[in-house]
Parts: sequence; structure tokens; C-alpha cells
Amino acid sequence: MTTPLTQLLGTALPIVQAPMAGVQGSALALAVCQAGGLGSLPAAALSPDALRTELGLMAAQSQGRPWNVNFFAHVPPVPDAAREAAWRASLAPCYAEHGIDPAGIAASPGRSPFSDAVADVVEAFRPPVVSFHFGLPSPALLARVRAWGAKVLSSATTVEEALWLQAQGVDAIIAQGLEAGGHRGFFLTRDLSTQMGTFALLPQIVQAVKLPVIAAGGIVDAPSVAAAFALGAAGVQAGTAYLLCPEATTSAVHRAALQSEAARHTALTTLFTGGAARGIVNRAMRELGALDNQAPAFPLATSAIAPLRAAAERAGSGDFTPLWSGQNASMCHAVPAAEVTRSLAAGVPASMCSNAA
Amino acid sequence: MTTPLTQLLGTALPIVQAPMAGVQGSALALAVCQAGGLGSLPAAALSPDALRTELGLMAAQSQGRPWNVNFFAHVPPVPDAAREAAWRASLAPCYAEHGIDPAGIAASPGRSPFSDAVADVVEAFRPPVVSFHFGLPSPALLARVRAWGAKVLSSATTVEEALWLQAQGVDAIIAQGLEAGGHRGFFLTRDLSTQMGTFALLPQIVQAVKLPVIAAGGIVDAPSVAAAFALGAAGVQAGTAYLLCPEATTSAVHRAALQSEAARHTALTTLFTGGAARGIVNRAMRELGALDNQAPAFPLATSAIAPLRAAAERAGSGDFTPLWSGQNASMCHAVPAAEVTRSLAAGVPASMCSNAA
Repeated sequence: MTTPLTQLLGTALPIVQAPMAGVQGSALALAVCQAGGLGSLPAAALSPDALRTELGLMAAQSQGRPWNVNFFAHVPPVPDAAREAAWRASLAPCYAEHGIDPAGIAASPGRSPFSDAVADVVEAFRPPVVSFHFGLPSPALLARVRAWGAKVLSSATTVEEALWLQAQGVDAIIAQGLEAGGHRGFFLTRDLSTQMGTFALLPQIVQAVKLPVIAAGGIVDAPSVAAAFALGAAGVQAGTAYLLCPEATTSAVHRAALQSEAARHTALTTLFTGGAARGIVNRAMRELGALDNQAPAFPLATSAIAPLRAAAERAGSGDFTPLWSGQNASMCHAVPAAEVTRSLAAGVPASMCSNAA
Repeated sequence: MTTPLTQLLGTALPIVQAPMAGVQGSALALAVCQAGGLGSLPAAALSPDALRTELGLMAAQSQGRPWNVNFFAHVPPVPDAAREAAWRASLAPCYAEHGIDPAGIAASPGRSPFSDAVADVVEAFRPPVVSFHFGLPSPALLARVRAWGAKVLSSATTVEEALWLQAQGVDAIIAQGLEAGGHRGFFLTRDLSTQMGTFALLPQIVQAVKLPVIAAGGIVDAPSVAAAFALGAAGVQAGTAYLLCPEATTSAVHRAALQSEAARHTALTTLFTGGAARGIVNRAMRELGALDNQAPAFPLATSAIAPLRAAAERAGSGDFTPLWSGQNASMCHAVPAAEVTRSLAAGVPASMCSNAA
């Protein structure tokens, strides 16, 4: 299968596995690469040592196939001690219920943006593709990545973001429809009302830019891939569809939720990190306010809820777990990532493909 | 073109023109019927006399082609004088700016739900298709409609609503994705977080029900029609795409907004009627809070803002006008409705069609 996107990325298939921090590492990414897709290593939550180890695995085991490493490009907020204290005070009943002493909760680093220090770690591994979420790093840092020969991808959630990314010289744009699970990649706005469904966002971005556009949000099976191509996509990015794969590290409570009726109702929430992200509605989202809350800014909200999540999960409960999921988990199956990749590839229209020599 | 939906409805094309109260009447519906689609007369805001006139035109001029009349099926709220007074008080600066005496604002009837009295008017016209928004009327009323021989359609915004409509015996279900312009048709919930994009909603409803599913939300041109069919739709319903047609009664300020950059940003708002509906973001939505406001329940909020709209429109401004639009107005063109209908029909895949004898 040869399409404009496979020619750009060097993959066999125009299928990107969405990087999903916390639920997968190199194992899932490698399995997707081996099936012909673009496997993605989510690096935002990895320590330098862990990143080095994972990159080593990607480089050693990808057998010459292209792979992607994903970083966040957010501007870290200035910590606000008063807001943090107020937020922890509002969580006091939850802490008490779980026997947690709030005084013992450390401020965790959360997720760090891509930086020169991170680039120092990555450089030796020469990733074939680097993708970013929440915009792009500084022009100097981006130039450093491009100097490695890496193709650069980033997510757009509005037409304006797509035009901005094109002006910065990315190689392809991921159009992240509102159906997508996990964090909204928005970076030129924080107004959730600007966020569009894939059916509206994708064709408008395709119309606005000259670059290949990769559709994300609601991509779960061959029919949805076919629909994305009908709307002008050059490829697709799927995340939720891979969450039950044996190669993913998705927790037991998360897997159970994805296979339950609860998965029919997802919502955006800032509770777990401070950033708006889509997950299956659980007790924390119902009781603390999924969006209507005073959680600290991304990624600072991660610390306060972490011990609640850990305590609840020890009791087998996902009440305080970010159960990231897109709006259609009905196609999630506990099958190998290669099978998911092949299922998605079956939706690429024959008219998109020229036979490779 | 013969598809399961054209066989059900008796139309030449599996294309439904969305009923749009306030911006169209029989002229648009008849033009769509004449082009082979299912033209729809929005009846919710019509007086009995106006309804009789419009139904007369539909019956007389549809030349034996099927047509649709649409009603609302909401449960009217109990008026809350305190809430109404508080809401008008919060609008006082706007009234003052426009020289409006709030004491002179009558409580308008707003939109009335389908009723036996309405059925008495409709009966003689034997509409071939009757569609409902906000659920369905009582079983007795629905039985009366079915006794006329009418096919019955209604909108679902969640899988649960689709299953409920199927259980009530509708003939087809309109899956209203979050991209759609105008009022959300939700009726089993008021939780906006349950509302899904077309890419996620449509295939899950198709999977859940045995009935033909008509895709709405983001249907603007042939590619989007093809995408909807790829996701399992039996037909499509398009609204925004018809708003600039000469046969529509869309106001000048509304037409200008649809053709401007402003149309890129739509949002749900309760300001104009009390019901959540999608329109182009304008001054009222920015300054009064699109959703974060105390507007009276649907449809009671209509009265308080009406004189502001009228005054602003007299000055050529859409600041207080409901500028209903879906999330993709980029395909709106000022061309005859027949042309829009033909453009949409070009996206119906050949594989869906069996040649009529």
C-alpha cells in the first residue's frame, strides 16, 4: 500500500497509533510498527532514564521500520500555592475516606514539555518521526529535531491551529476531532466551544492546508477509516482501539471500564491533570465536577489526585482513575495490536493506494 | 437511485432537508422535494393558520412526491415568574442600550409541542412523513399520526435515545451528531457531555438499532455524505448547507454571518430559546454567556431576547440574532436548493443503490 502519507513517513500503512502516556510503552508501538503502521512511544511522562531505555528498545527492535516518539509542547504554568491548597482542601473528604494524609502528598513533576535536556537524550536515537501535542516547541528546538532528519507531526483542533502548524513547517497535521480520547491538543485557545467533531474539523482543515492531514477522533475500525478518507484524510490516528491490546499497559480497572456499559458516556475533564481530556465518566468526574472545578492548571493537577487514584485502584476501583477513552469504545477488543492495525488498514480505500514497485 | 431509505420514504434520493424553524418554509421544502430529496416543513413556530397555509402549499405543489412536516415534542415547562424577572433584570443594560422598555415585552408563546389541536389541523393534509424533535408525542398522539399512513422519524443524540425511539416504533432514526446546527434534540438527558460527534454517534446507533439511520451533523457536501454512508448511514439530513439558498428565508444578517470568518466558531447556547442550540458565536453569546446563564427553560427564553434581536436587526446587526449553523458552514453557497440536493446526492455510494425497475 503506497499513499502520500506512507511515502512521507516511510510506513507500509497510513495508520498511526496514537501515543497514550500511562497506558502503553514501546511494546505496543513496536507491535504496530511490525504490522506496518506508525507505532508511537509516548514520552511526556517518562524520566530521562526511562526515556533512554524505551528509545533504545524502539531503535533496536523496529527493524528499520519508521517509528514515532511523542512529546508535549505545553508552556508549564507558574505553580499557584493558594490554588493548590484550596484544591487539596476541596478533596479533603476524599482523602479522609481513603485514609490519606494530605500533608504527605508531594508535588509531582507531572508531565514536562520537550526541552533541550530531553533532546540531548533523544538525539542519539534519531527517531524517524517526532510528534507533538499542545503545539510545538520553540523554533530553535524544532530546528534541532528537524536536523536529525525526523518528520514532524502535531495536532490541530481548529482551522487556526492547523494554519499555524503549517506556517511552522510541520510535515503533516493531525486533525484531532472532539470525539478523541485523552487530552485535547489545543494550544491557541482554551475555549472548549471551539472544539469540533471530526466530521466538521477534518474537511475544514483539509481545505485550509496544503499538508497531509491525519484524522483522529472516532477512528476505531475499517468503516471509520473509510469515512475519514472520504472526508479528505491522508491517514488516520487511532488510540482507543488499541487500549485492550495485550501489548498495552492499560490497567485492569481501565480495561474493565472500556468493556462496560459505562464506556458509552465519556466526557472532557480537567480533574486528573488540569488539562481538558476525555475519559469514561466515573465517580470523581460525577462528584468533583468534570470541568466545573478549581483543579490547578495542566499538568499540576496530577499530584493531588494521584494518591486517591492509587488507593482506589488498590481496592479494585477506577473511581479516581483517568479512564481515557474516545467517544466510541464499542470497537475495543482484546486482540493483538497487529490485528487492530490490519482491521484499520482494511478501511483505506483502494483508490488511495498505488502499488509499490 | 433506490436504497432502503428511498424505499421507506418513497423519495428518489436518500437525502433529507433538515426542518429549520425561522429560516425556511414550504418554498425550500418544495424545492428539495422537486429535486428528489425529502423536503421538510418546520411547523413548531407556526400558528394554526400559518400551518394550514403552508401544509396546503406542500400538499398542492409536491406533485405526488413525499414530503415531511416537523414538530417539536417537548414537555412545556411551568413558567417561573421569578426566574423570568431575574433574567429580564440581567438583560436590563441591553434593553437600555437599545431603548427598549422591558415592561412592554409580552411573554410570547414560543414554540408549542405537537398536540391533538395541531393534529386536527394537519390531518386533512395526510403528510407522507412526520418528523419530531425532542423525542415523540404521547403514544396516543403518535398512533393518530401513524393512522394517517405517515412514516415517523425522530432524532436521537445518544444510543439510549435511539433504542427508546426504536421501542416506540419510529420508522427511521436521525442520528444528530454534535456538529449539527440548531437545537440539540436530546430528550432523555439534559447533560451536554452525553452528546457525541457524528463520527462516534452514528456507527454506535447503527450498531444498536435495526432501523435505517439518517446521519445529521457535518453533512454539507458529497464527501461528507460518502463518509456518513461509510459509517453505516442509510441516508443523510442536511440543514446548514441549505441556509443560503434563495428558497430559504434566512435573514440578511444570518446570511452575512454564514459567509464570514465568524462562521468558523459556533457554540451551543441556551440564550435564544432556553434550549441548547448551535449557532455562530455573536455578541450576545460572548457577553451574556452562551451556556453559563440563567435563561428560562425552553422555549420560554424566546420572549426576553426577541425585542433585542428585532432592534439590533433593524440596525443591521446580528448581535442578538440566533445565527443557527452547524460546525461546518464552509460549504454554504447561495445556490438553488435543487443544486445543493444534487451535490449531496453525488456522495451516495453506487453500492448503496439498486436500479429501480
